[in-house]
Amino acid sequence: MDIVCLDLEGVLVPEIWINVAERTGIEALRRTTRDEPDYDTLMRSRIEILDAHGLRLSDIQAVIAQMGPLEGAREFLDELRSLTQVLILSDTFSEFAKPLMEQLGWPTLFCNSLEVVSDRIVSHRMRIHNGKKAAIEALHTLNYRTFAAGDSYNDLAMIEAADGGCLFRAPASILADHPHLALTEEYGALMAQIKEFLLP
Amino acid sequence: MDIVCLDLEGVLVPEIWINVAERTGIEALRRTTRDEPDYDTLMRSRIEILDAHGLRLSDIQAVIAQMGPLEGAREFLDELRSLTQVLILSDTFSEFAKPLMEQLGWPTLFCNSLEVVSDRIVSHRMRIHNGKKAAIEALHTLNYRTFAAGDSYNDLAMIEAADGGCLFRAPASILADHPHLALTEEYGALMAQIKEFLLP
Repeated sequence: MDIVCLDLEGVLVPEIWINVAERTGIEALRRTTRDEPDYDTLMRSRIEILDAHGLRLSDIQAVIAQMGPLEGAREFLDELRSLTQVLILSDTFSEFAKPLMEQLGWPTLFCNSLEVVSDRIVSHRMRIHNGKKAAIEALHTLNYRTFAAGDSYNDLAMIEAADGGCLFRAPASILADHPHLALTEEYGALMAQIKEFLLP
Repeated sequence: MDIVCLDLEGVLVPEIWINVAERTGIEALRRTTRDEPDYDTLMRSRIEILDAHGLRLSDIQAVIAQMGPLEGAREFLDELRSLTQVLILSDTFSEFAKPLMEQLGWPTLFCNSLEVVSDRIVSHRMRIHNGKKAAIEALHTLNYRTFAAGDSYNDLAMIEAADGGCLFRAPASILADHPHLALTEEYGALMAQIKEFLLP
């Protein structure tokens, strides 16, 4: 039995924080895990920046609700879910992801949550350290063959731990460090990699 | 972070084998895990019966495609997936489940697979022993709080292992042996149990 694990931001939906940065004009919010591999450090600085600018959860949710999935993502995911089981493994937060997950047809999402008091984001709660890799390992204990795809530093441990996998629209810096990983740029190529893995 | 794990047959869709028994007139196919708690024994006897009657995978799939989900199941599941994460944990087989999962909006399904040669079901492949309970335990390693619901003997270990749970339309024999488990009969009551669990 096979299961495909996909990163969310950059693979199925736009980078949430880059969109927030563009709509709010706060350049410092453009940083992603591509720039700061330590996600905990990155999130603490993001929350401080939001607070300094008086931005609340509902402000961010309003931006996210307008983003929508990447072009072709829904069709890709619909086809994939008709072929095999799919889990979305993300370091994002359920409070942010919800409007996007609805637009993707509610695929199952393993992610984290925020602590919010009166619409102010107080802190982030990481469910588990290295959650993406841990999910792959948990699936292996259930005798699943796993395929993983993502675009960022925080996807590398997941992809390396999986039985099969590839990068999707990854930056040159990751490619240079991991030349053994296949790179896909379009959903058709990613689907081809997955179908090759699924073949008996 | 919470996740809700649901049995498939008897909770979201009709009992597949009872439907096949009714449409084929083969009474021996009516037996379920309610009658024979050892699923492996039950499946071997089902496959022998199919073979003796010359019934192929496509015959069973034709029946299943016409069954559809239980009345209200899709609406219940849609609401639940907007509230929290959901996994369907079933001892059924991906070859049987597919048309029903499409009608349920492709929720993620952890189940088993069949070995099929030229449309003849040769054997069943259990992905793992006690797969439902193992899935709950794997989710616990990922720091999920788990709620589980089902109707049959093969759901009891899952429900007992979960942080919360209840029975749904379970027979009297199970209730008599497990009086500590709450019983729900309608989706509204099941949703109420889940919402009580999800409250912080």
